[in-house]
Amino acid sequence: MSPHAPSSRLKVSGMCFLLQMLIIILFAVFVRYSPNGSPGLCSARLNCSSRRNPGPGSSHLRSWNVHLQTLMGFGFLMVFLGRYRMESAATCLLVTAFAIQWALLIQGFFYSFQNGKIYMETQSMVSAVFCAGAVLVSTGALLGWGNPLQLLLMSLLEVPLFSANEYVLLHLIGVSDGGGSLTVHTFGAYFGLALSWILRQDHAGKREQQQDTGHSPDVLAAAGTVCLWIFWPGFVSAAMVPASVEPWTELNTYVAMAASTLATFVMSPLLHKDGTPCMCQVQDATVAGAVVMGTAGEMLLAPFGALVAGFLAGLIPPLSSRFFAPTLLHKLSIQDARCIHGVHSVPGILGTLLGVLLAALATADAYGDRLQLAFPHIADGSRTATYQALCQLCALPVTLLFAVLGGSVTGAILKIKGLGSPLATSCLENKTLQEGSREQQASGEELSGSTSV
Amino acid sequence: MSPHAPSSRLKVSGMCFLLQMLIIILFAVFVRYSPNGSPGLCSARLNCSSRRNPGPGSSHLRSWNVHLQTLMGFGFLMVFLGRYRMESAATCLLVTAFAIQWALLIQGFFYSFQNGKIYMETQSMVSAVFCAGAVLVSTGALLGWGNPLQLLLMSLLEVPLFSANEYVLLHLIGVSDGGGSLTVHTFGAYFGLALSWILRQDHAGKREQQQDTGHSPDVLAAAGTVCLWIFWPGFVSAAMVPASVEPWTELNTYVAMAASTLATFVMSPLLHKDGTPCMCQVQDATVAGAVVMGTAGEMLLAPFGALVAGFLAGLIPPLSSRFFAPTLLHKLSIQDARCIHGVHSVPGILGTLLGVLLAALATADAYGDRLQLAFPHIADGSRTATYQALCQLCALPVTLLFAVLGGSVTGAILKIKGLGSPLATSCLENKTLQEGSREQQASGEELSGSTSV
Amino acid sequence: MSPHAPSSRLKVSGMCFLLQMLIIILFAVFVRYSPNGSPGLCSARLNCSSRRNPGPGSSHLRSWNVHLQTLMGFGFLMVFLGRYRMESAATCLLVTAFAIQWALLIQGFFYSFQNGKIYMETQSMVSAVFCAGAVLVSTGALLGWGNPLQLLLMSLLEVPLFSANEYVLLHLIGVSDGGGSLTVHTFGAYFGLALSWILRQDHAGKREQQQDTGHSPDVLAAAGTVCLWIFWPGFVSAAMVPASVEPWTELNTYVAMAASTLATFVMSPLLHKDGTPCMCQVQDATVAGAVVMGTAGEMLLAPFGALVAGFLAGLIPPLSSRFFAPTLLHKLSIQDARCIHGVHSVPGILGTLLGVLLAALATADAYGDRLQLAFPHIADGSRTATYQALCQLCALPVTLLFAVLGGSVTGAILKIKGLGSPLATSCLENKTLQEGSREQQASGEELSGSTSV
Repeated sequence: MSPHAPSSRLKVSGMCFLLQMLIIILFAVFVRYSPNGSPGLCSARLNCSSRRNPGPGSSHLRSWNVHLQTLMGFGFLMVFLGRYRMESAATCLLVTAFAIQWALLIQGFFYSFQNGKIYMETQSMVSAVFCAGAVLVSTGALLGWGNPLQLLLMSLLEVPLFSANEYVLLHLIGVSDGGGSLTVHTFGAYFGLALSWILRQDHAGKREQQQDTGHSPDVLAAAGTVCLWIFWPGFVSAAMVPASVEPWTELNTYVAMAASTLATFVMSPLLHKDGTPCMCQVQDATVAGAVVMGTAGEMLLAPFGALVAGFLAGLIPPLSSRFFAPTLLHKLSIQDARCIHGVHSVPGILGTLLGVLLAALATADAYGDRLQLAFPHIADGSRTATYQALCQLCALPVTLLFAVLGGSVTGAILKIKGLGSPLATSCLENKTLQEGSREQQASGEELSGSTSV
Repeated sequence: MSPHAPSSRLKVSGMCFLLQMLIIILFAVFVRYSPNGSPGLCSARLNCSSRRNPGPGSSHLRSWNVHLQTLMGFGFLMVFLGRYRMESAATCLLVTAFAIQWALLIQGFFYSFQNGKIYMETQSMVSAVFCAGAVLVSTGALLGWGNPLQLLLMSLLEVPLFSANEYVLLHLIGVSDGGGSLTVHTFGAYFGLALSWILRQDHAGKREQQQDTGHSPDVLAAAGTVCLWIFWPGFVSAAMVPASVEPWTELNTYVAMAASTLATFVMSPLLHKDGTPCMCQVQDATVAGAVVMGTAGEMLLAPFGALVAGFLAGLIPPLSSRFFAPTLLHKLSIQDARCIHGVHSVPGILGTLLGVLLAALATADAYGDRLQLAFPHIADGSRTATYQALCQLCALPVTLLFAVLGGSVTGAILKIKGLGSPLATSCLENKTLQEGSREQQASGEELSGSTSV
Repeated sequence: MSPHAPSSRLKVSGMCFLLQMLIIILFAVFVRYSPNGSPGLCSARLNCSSRRNPGPGSSHLRSWNVHLQTLMGFGFLMVFLGRYRMESAATCLLVTAFAIQWALLIQGFFYSFQNGKIYMETQSMVSAVFCAGAVLVSTGALLGWGNPLQLLLMSLLEVPLFSANEYVLLHLIGVSDGGGSLTVHTFGAYFGLALSWILRQDHAGKREQQQDTGHSPDVLAAAGTVCLWIFWPGFVSAAMVPASVEPWTELNTYVAMAASTLATFVMSPLLHKDGTPCMCQVQDATVAGAVVMGTAGEMLLAPFGALVAGFLAGLIPPLSSRFFAPTLLHKLSIQDARCIHGVHSVPGILGTLLGVLLAALATADAYGDRLQLAFPHIADGSRTATYQALCQLCALPVTLLFAVLGGSVTGAILKIKGLGSPLATSCLENKTLQEGSREQQASGEELSGSTSV
C-alpha cells in the first residue's frame, strides 16, 4: 500500500514525457497547416469526409464558423469534467490533452494524408474533439480506480480504434451519424465497459477498497449541466449541418433535452424514496436526451419526434442505475459507477435504431432539399431508403465489435504491462484517503442512496 | 410532517408525466419546423414580430446568428441558476425545461399560427428563452418553500399570461422593449410577488419553519456572475439589433453593469458593518444594471447615459434588501428572500421610465438611421415622439395589471387545488433538513448578515 | 487591528463614488459612439491600430465578429477569477469593472481621439478587455493583503501606463504582439511584482499575519480552467487574425495548451511527493502554455513549434514555484503567492524571445500571404527580417522598464497616501479571519504542500 513510491511516480512522469516527445517528433515530420485557398485539397476533403461540410460560403464565414465550433467543442468536452469527481478532474484534463494531440495525428493519417504530409486545419480540431469525447466516455468506466498511466495507455490504443471505426462507418458503410450517437457514445461506452471487465478480474480485491463510487458533488454537476445546455446542441448541430440551413438538429437536441429533464422527474420518485432527483441525476438524464439525438437530430422533421425520443432516453439512466448497474456489478463484476451504460450506451443504441427507422421511412417528398443533408446517398440516387436503413443497422454490430474487441484487447495489454499498482489520481484524493473513515462512509451512503434505496 | 409520503411523491411524478404527454400531443398535432426558403412566411413573421428581426443578409449568416443566439440564450438562463441555492438547482432546471416547451407552443399560437400549424424556427427558441427567463424570475419568490408541483402549475399559468402581455405590449401598443425590462423582469417579479402574497397567507405557519432565506453560496454566485458577464449582454443585444449595425445595446449593457458593480461598493459599506460586499451582493447589483438597460439599451446614444442608469440601478438592491424587504415581510407578509423586488422589479421600472424619457426626446437628427431600430413607429412617421413616450408609459400599468392580477389568480388556483404540502425541492435539501440545527443557524446568520446588520 | 473602522469603510465607499463620478463626467464630455458607416474614421482606425483589424467583409459579419469577440473577451477575464481565492472574487470584479471603464477612456485618448471626441465602438471594448487582463495579472501580486482601495488606485495608475507601453510597442516600435505575451502578461506581472516589492517593505510585519498564500480551491480552479479552454484561444486569435484566414493562432494556442498540460504531469511528480498534480497546478501550466503563444501564435507555420513551446512553458510554473518563489520571498521579500512570476512573466518573456527568433527567420516564401498578418512591416518592404527581429527584441527592455518603473512609482504613491490599513477584501474573509486557527493551519499546509514539499 505505497501508492506514491518513487518508481510509480516516475512511471507517470516518464510516460508523459515519452508520449509528448513521440507526438512532437511525429508532428515535426508529418503535420503542416493546410495552406489557405487550396481548392484542390479542400474539395478532396469534402469528398472524403461527410462530417466536415463547411458548405458553400465566403472564407470569412467559414473561419468564424470554425472559431465558434471549436469554442463550443471545448465546452462540449467540459461537460464530462462535470460528470466526474473533483479529484479526477486533473486526470481527465491530462487524458483530454493527450487524446486531442493523438487524434489530430491519427485522424490526419485517415483523412488528410497527402504527399507524405498531414494537412491540418481547424476542422481537424473539431474531429479531434469528437474523438476525445469518446475517450472521456470510456474514462468514466475506469475513474476512481484506474491510474493515470492506465488512462494514458487506454487513450493511446482507443484513439486509433475510434478513428478506424469512424472511418469504416462514415466512409465505407456510408452511415449518417453526424452527432455521434453510435461512433462516439456507443463506441466509447462499450469500449470502457469491456476494458473494465477485463481489468476488474485482475483487481477484484483492490477494487473493494479503493472504489470511488460516488457521483460528482452537486456543484460540479451544476457546472457540467450549464456547459451541457449552452454548448452541446450548438456543437453537435454545427458538426452536422452546414451554415446555410436552419439548424433543426440544434432545435431537436434542445427539445429532447427538455423532455428528458421532465422524464427524470417522472421516473425518479417512482424508484427512490427521496422526493425529487439530485442535480447529478438530472444531468445524467439530460446527457441521455442529447445522446439520443446524435444520429437522428438531422433526420427528424417535426419536433414532437424529438420530444418522444428525449422522454424515452430520459427514463433510461434512472432505470439503468436501479436495475442494470447491480446486475453488471454482481454478475459480470463490471462496476459502472458513472452510469456510462445508462447514460451513453443504451441511449446511443436507441438513437441508432431511431436513425434506422427514419432512414427506412425517408422519402424525397418529405425531406425536400434537406434529404441531401440527412441522407446524401439516398439524395444522389445511389441507394434506396431501405438499403440505407440496412446500412444504418449494420453499423451497430460493427461498432459493438470494434468496441468490445478493442476494449478487451486494450485491457489484456494493460494487464500484461504490469501497470496494476493503482496510483492515486490526484493530490486531493491522497488527502481524502488519509482522512479515511469519514469519506468512506459518506461515499458509501451516497452510493446506496443513488442506486438502491 | 411527512414530506416524502408516497402520495406526494407520486403527485410530482404524475404531474410531470401528464404535462409531458400533453405537450407531446399538442406538438404532434400543431408544430412543424418552418420550411427553408419560404419568403412569404418569413416576411409575415417579420411584420408580426418586432423582437425577431434577423435583418437582411444571406441565409448562412442568419443561421449562424441564431446558433450564437441560442448559445447565449441558455447562458442567460443559467444566470438564474446561480442566483438560487444549490438545493433548488434541479427544480429550476425542471421549471426551465417545462417552460421552454410550453412557451414554444403558446408563443407559436400568438405569432406563427398559419393554416392550423405552428411553424417553429430557431427564433422561436430565442423567444421561448425570454419567456422562461420571466418564469425563473417569478420562481425566485417561491423557491425554498414552494414545491415542484406548485412551480410547475405556476409555469403552466404564467407562460400564457406572459405571452399575452408581451403580445399586447409589443404588437398592440407598439412599445419598444427588446431587452425585456418591462416584459420579462417587471412582469416576472410582480407576478412572483403577488403569487407569494396570496400563497403566504395560507402557509404562514409553515413558512416560519421552512423558510430558505439564505443567499446562494459564493461559489454559485461566482458562476452565475461569470455567465452574466459572458452571455447576457450579447443575448439581449442580439434579440434587439439586427446584425448589420454596431451593437450599441451590448456596449450600453456592459457599461451599465460595470457602473452598477462600483455602485455596490459605494452603497454596501454605508449599510453594513462588513467592509466590502459579498459575491452575491455584487451579482445582484450586476443583474440590476443589466435589467435597467433592457428597454433603453438601444435608445441611448452615448455611453454616459448607460453609466448613470447603471450606477443608479446598482444602488437599488442593497437599499431594497435593507429597507424594503423587512417592510414587505412584516407589513405584507411577502417574503422576498432572493431580492427579486430590488433586483428585477424596481430596476425594470426604472428602465421603463428611462425608455419613456428617451422616447419623448427622440429626434430624427440625433438618431439618424438608428431611429428605425429604436423607435420604428416614429421612424415611419406614424407616431410623434411624445405619443410614443405616452405608449411606453402606458405599458407600465398594463404590465403591472397583468402581473399582479395574474399572480393573484394563479395563487388562488394553487390554493384551491390543495397542493399545499411542501415537498422538499431536492434530495440534497432532505439531507440538510435532517441535519437540522447546524444548517438552520447558519442560514439564519446569513440572513441577518445580509439584510439587517 | 480594526479593519472595519467606519473611516476605512467610508474610504472605499467614497473612493468608488469619486472614481465613478469622474468617469461619468469624462464620458459625458468626451465619449460618443462611433457613427455607423463612416468610412473615413474607420480607415483611420485601421491605420493606427494593428490589433484591431476587422478585415474586409460586410458590416453584418463585422458586427457578429465583435459580438463573439466581446463574449469570448469576458470569458478570458473570468479565467483570472478562477486563479484567485473565492474571498477575493468580489474585489476582482470591482477591479475589472473599474479598469474596463477607465481603459475605454484612456485608450480612447490614445487611439480614437478626433475633433475633441472619443469615438467608441465594440473594438474599443476588446482593447479594454486586454488592458483589464493586465490589471488582473498585477492584482495577483497584491491579493490577500492589498485592500480594495489600494487595488483601485493601482488600476487608476496602471491603465495609463499599460496604454502608453502598448502604444510605444505597437505603433512606435512596430512590434507584432497580438496576443499580448509582452504587452499584457510580461507587463502586468512585472508591474505587480515591483509594486509588491515596494509595498512589502512597508507592511512586512502585517504580511506575516495576514498573508493569504493558498491556491484557489479546486472547484474554482476547475471553473477557471473550463473558461480557459473554451474562451482564451478564440479570443486571442480573434484579436490577431482577421476573419478571412484560417485561425492558425487558435490552433497553435490549443496545441500549446495541450502540451503544457502534459508537461505538468512530467514535472510535478519529480518535484513533489504527491503522485499527480492538483487542478490548480494544471491550471497554472495551461495558462503558461497559452501565454507563450501570445506573440508567436500567428508566426508559427507548423504545429510542432507550438507543441515544443507549450511543453517548455508548462515546465516553468512548477519549477518556478519550487525554486524561484522561495528565493523571491526570502531574498527580495516579494511574496508571489499566485505564482504570477512562473505563470505570466517567464512564459511571457519566453514567448517574446520565440517571436524574435521567428521574426529573424521570416521569409516571404515560407509565409506567403500570411506575411502581411504576421509581420506587416516585412511584407510591405519597409523592414528586413533582421531589423524586425531587433525591434521585437528591443520591445522587451522597454516593457520591463515601463513595468518596473511604473510599478515602483505606483507603490511609492500608494505608500505616500497612507492607505496602509489592510481592509478585508470581502465579507467572507471576515468570517474566516474570525474562525482563526483552523483556516490558518489549513492554508499553511496548503502553502507548504504546493511550494516546498
